[in-house]
Amino acid sequence: MSQRVKIGKLAVLLASLDKEELTPFQDQLEGVKFCTGRAGSMNMQKVIAAVETAAKRQHIISEEVYRETHSLYHAILEALEGVTRGQIAIGDMMRTVGLKFAVVRGEPYARNGEGEWLAVAFYGTIGAPVKGLEHETMGLGINHI
Amino acid sequence: MSQRVKIGKLAVLLASLDKEELTPFQDQLEGVKFCTGRAGSMNMQKVIAAVETAAKRQHIISEEVYRETHSLYHAILEALEGVTRGQIAIGDMMRTVGLKFAVVRGEPYARNGEGEWLAVAFYGTIGAPVKGLEHETMGLGINHI
Amino acid sequence: MSQRVKIGKLAVLLASLDKEELTPFQDQLEGVKFCTGRAGSMNMQKVIAAVETAAKRQHIISEEVYRETHSLYHAILEALEGVTRGQIAIGDMMRTVGLKFAVVRGEPYARNGEGEWLAVAFYGTIGAPVKGLEHETMGLGINHI
Amino acid sequence: MSQRVKIGKLAVLLASLDKEELTPFQDQLEGVKFCTGRAGSMNMQKVIAAVETAAKRQHIISEEVYRETHSLYHAILEALEGVTRGQIAIGDMMRTVGLKFAVVRGEPYARNGEGEWLAVAFYGTIGAPVKGLEHETMGLGINHI
Amino acid sequence: MSQRVKIGKLAVLLASLDKEELTPFQDQLEGVKFCTGRAGSMNMQKVIAAVETAAKRQHIISEEVYRETHSLYHAILEALEGVTRGQIAIGDMMRTVGLKFAVVRGEPYARNGEGEWLAVAFYGTIGAPVKGLEHETMGLGINHI
Amino acid sequence: MSQRVKIGKLAVLLASLDKEELTPFQDQLEGVKFCTGRAGSMNMQKVIAAVETAAKRQHIISEEVYRETHSLYHAILEALEGVTRGQIAIGDMMRTVGLKFAVVRGEPYARNGEGEWLAVAFYGTIGAPVKGLEHETMGLGINHI
Repeated sequence: MSQRVKIGKLAVLLASLDKEELTPFQDQLEGVKFCTGRAGSMNMQKVIAAVETAAKRQHIISEEVYRETHSLYHAILEALEGVTRGQIAIGDMMRTVGLKFAVVRGEPYARNGEGEWLAVAFYGTIGAPVKGLEHETMGLGINHI
Repeated sequence: MSQRVKIGKLAVLLASLDKEELTPFQDQLEGVKFCTGRAGSMNMQKVIAAVETAAKRQHIISEEVYRETHSLYHAILEALEGVTRGQIAIGDMMRTVGLKFAVVRGEPYARNGEGEWLAVAFYGTIGAPVKGLEHETMGLGINHI
Repeated sequence: MSQRVKIGKLAVLLASLDKEELTPFQDQLEGVKFCTGRAGSMNMQKVIAAVETAAKRQHIISEEVYRETHSLYHAILEALEGVTRGQIAIGDMMRTVGLKFAVVRGEPYARNGEGEWLAVAFYGTIGAPVKGLEHETMGLGINHI
Repeated sequence: MSQRVKIGKLAVLLASLDKEELTPFQDQLEGVKFCTGRAGSMNMQKVIAAVETAAKRQHIISEEVYRETHSLYHAILEALEGVTRGQIAIGDMMRTVGLKFAVVRGEPYARNGEGEWLAVAFYGTIGAPVKGLEHETMGLGINHI
Repeated sequence: MSQRVKIGKLAVLLASLDKEELTPFQDQLEGVKFCTGRAGSMNMQKVIAAVETAAKRQHIISEEVYRETHSLYHAILEALEGVTRGQIAIGDMMRTVGLKFAVVRGEPYARNGEGEWLAVAFYGTIGAPVKGLEHETMGLGINHI
Repeated sequence: MSQRVKIGKLAVLLASLDKEELTPFQDQLEGVKFCTGRAGSMNMQKVIAAVETAAKRQHIISEEVYRETHSLYHAILEALEGVTRGQIAIGDMMRTVGLKFAVVRGEPYARNGEGEWLAVAFYGTIGAPVKGLEHETMGLGINHI
């Protein structure tokens, strides 16, 4: 892969590694803007809102411009396809998620004109709404911004 | 997450990190069986076959027992939902993938009777069948075996 | 296309054009029965109910016969696939719609025995539940009745 | 088909036949564990919960072990794909179901090591939330346990 | 269920029972038109064509009228949702099917004006393209004609 | 709708109206860049390629920049969801399309910073691979560029 900065890989690492495990990747993280957060819910709307709110509050995307919200929204949905694998639904299908998420904004391509892209990653658990009846899940979405 | 061994996280790291980056995770990898490989194609069947063949040749699953093939097949499909985000199709939708994959087999739960589980992860690129017109993609599937 | 009356095209025009823009199409509209209406909601059930209620009240379909409701229901769902593009869900995915709809009933084919068909079209906006954070959307469903 | 015991066919018959019609299949039913029940709802969560509760109360699966719940959950979802045909949703799409279900646990394969598998079948009606505006529906899911 | 004739149940029984097992249902079968056949393939197109050809050759539907082909096509697709559970694809996803199918045409409702409906059922196996690595599968589709 | 230029509506009109019918919309078309073309095929890849080739040849998007191809590709896929309603597949599901398409590039929003967006519309027929056994179909996709 000829990409200069792997924003997808960085988002995945930010969502799945703890602080100590992230240490070797600090250099790569200096080339991008990012935020992280947590969302635990049976309600898909709350998961989407948690990511959007974090990305706006921490100035990863602009609140004023619809095209940035549109880009982030589709990156979130694509990441949720990986999390839910088949139907973007949780509570309606009697399952719950406990997720850590990361949003990374950077310039993955060296070519002129490619500009900025967004990566959204989720990592955590999905399962029955009973503690322990769950397994790991992950998702990644990428979009131009 | 109360899991003893995070087979999903390990599969994701095996698929996305290079040898040096994996060094800090060697301890965790000692508790599981795993294999890795590569699949680049516009043909979904070839991607599925590459993972199944690797997992059988390297004795991660048994070739003799259908239930192990069945478990792996569904874990692969779930991981491909993350890679393809919406329709499990590549060439038919005029896109191609260049993926590294990992299959991990281990016992994630401390409880008696939970036994062995499989994790399948893909990491790489998806895009137009033209070099450079592509972005990162990732997927993870988990199943009991 | 060898169709006598293009009920799908007429439904799309009824849903997307204003009164003045529709003037040149009055002749074509004389060969069919139709109704139009509006539905704005985060609740998919309300959108479906708005179309069904309008079509029954304005006698486009019969309230007494299940086969007509069944035909309309599937035409609505197919049109909603175009509106939602991937998952027939709105509020659960934190998005809202503001739609104009049209139901057209006519005989598109010259062949004997082809009888009546239904077209359902939606046109309007889909987006975040914040005014202005939205873009256009459209869908068309066709069924025999 | 070389299967010793057709757990899928038995689940379908248990869900769709009445007591008298089932008489000729009593012999085949002696080789498996099974339970049946009913679920009528516009709420998908309640349908899933009805099957899980019945299967646990009647000891078809163990309540203590997550892998059995995981296996049953995926068999239920696969059966619901047949019931809903396209989107695993009912009330959100303004439709309701009245279903009889069956869960069968047995050893379909003669080969050593194939062990136990689960079949979940639904049979009943799906339609508008108005009595009589409905047609038949069926679904079958199979998983290793 | 208040239906006079359960065309869906009859289609399922025709697809899954052998001749002897069908004996107790002969009375119910006298009230409907039906045909059965077999389709084994990795190619979805061939499965669809096998059902359409059988239904036309055996005069269950008319070859001359598009609305009958349209009705049958959608009933076949709905039945294939149950068979494939998630993506209507077989060979592309490296799986093969061996199916028996049945098409039933009858008047399920006592109400005037409900007229004729079609049921399409599949029963058989789905699995890896290796003998024995497969499990049962079933699907049912219903449409007005 | 508060949009200055309705690029989606214009794309739909360009795809579905003939030259004469388009006359009243000439004013609106002056504010945007657009191209049109035709694609008739059982092969989804060819449909996608026809739109991409036309848009590049007629300089609606730049061939040099991946982000423009990425934006167009996702707008095409969203429009194909409306055309295919459920599974983005044609030949595999034994159906064929005869489509006219339009790509429109413009600035739909008055707000600063919203920049350019793309609309892709299809209109034509979908049906069995037999002349006349087909009905109308339409789809619209919108993306920021």
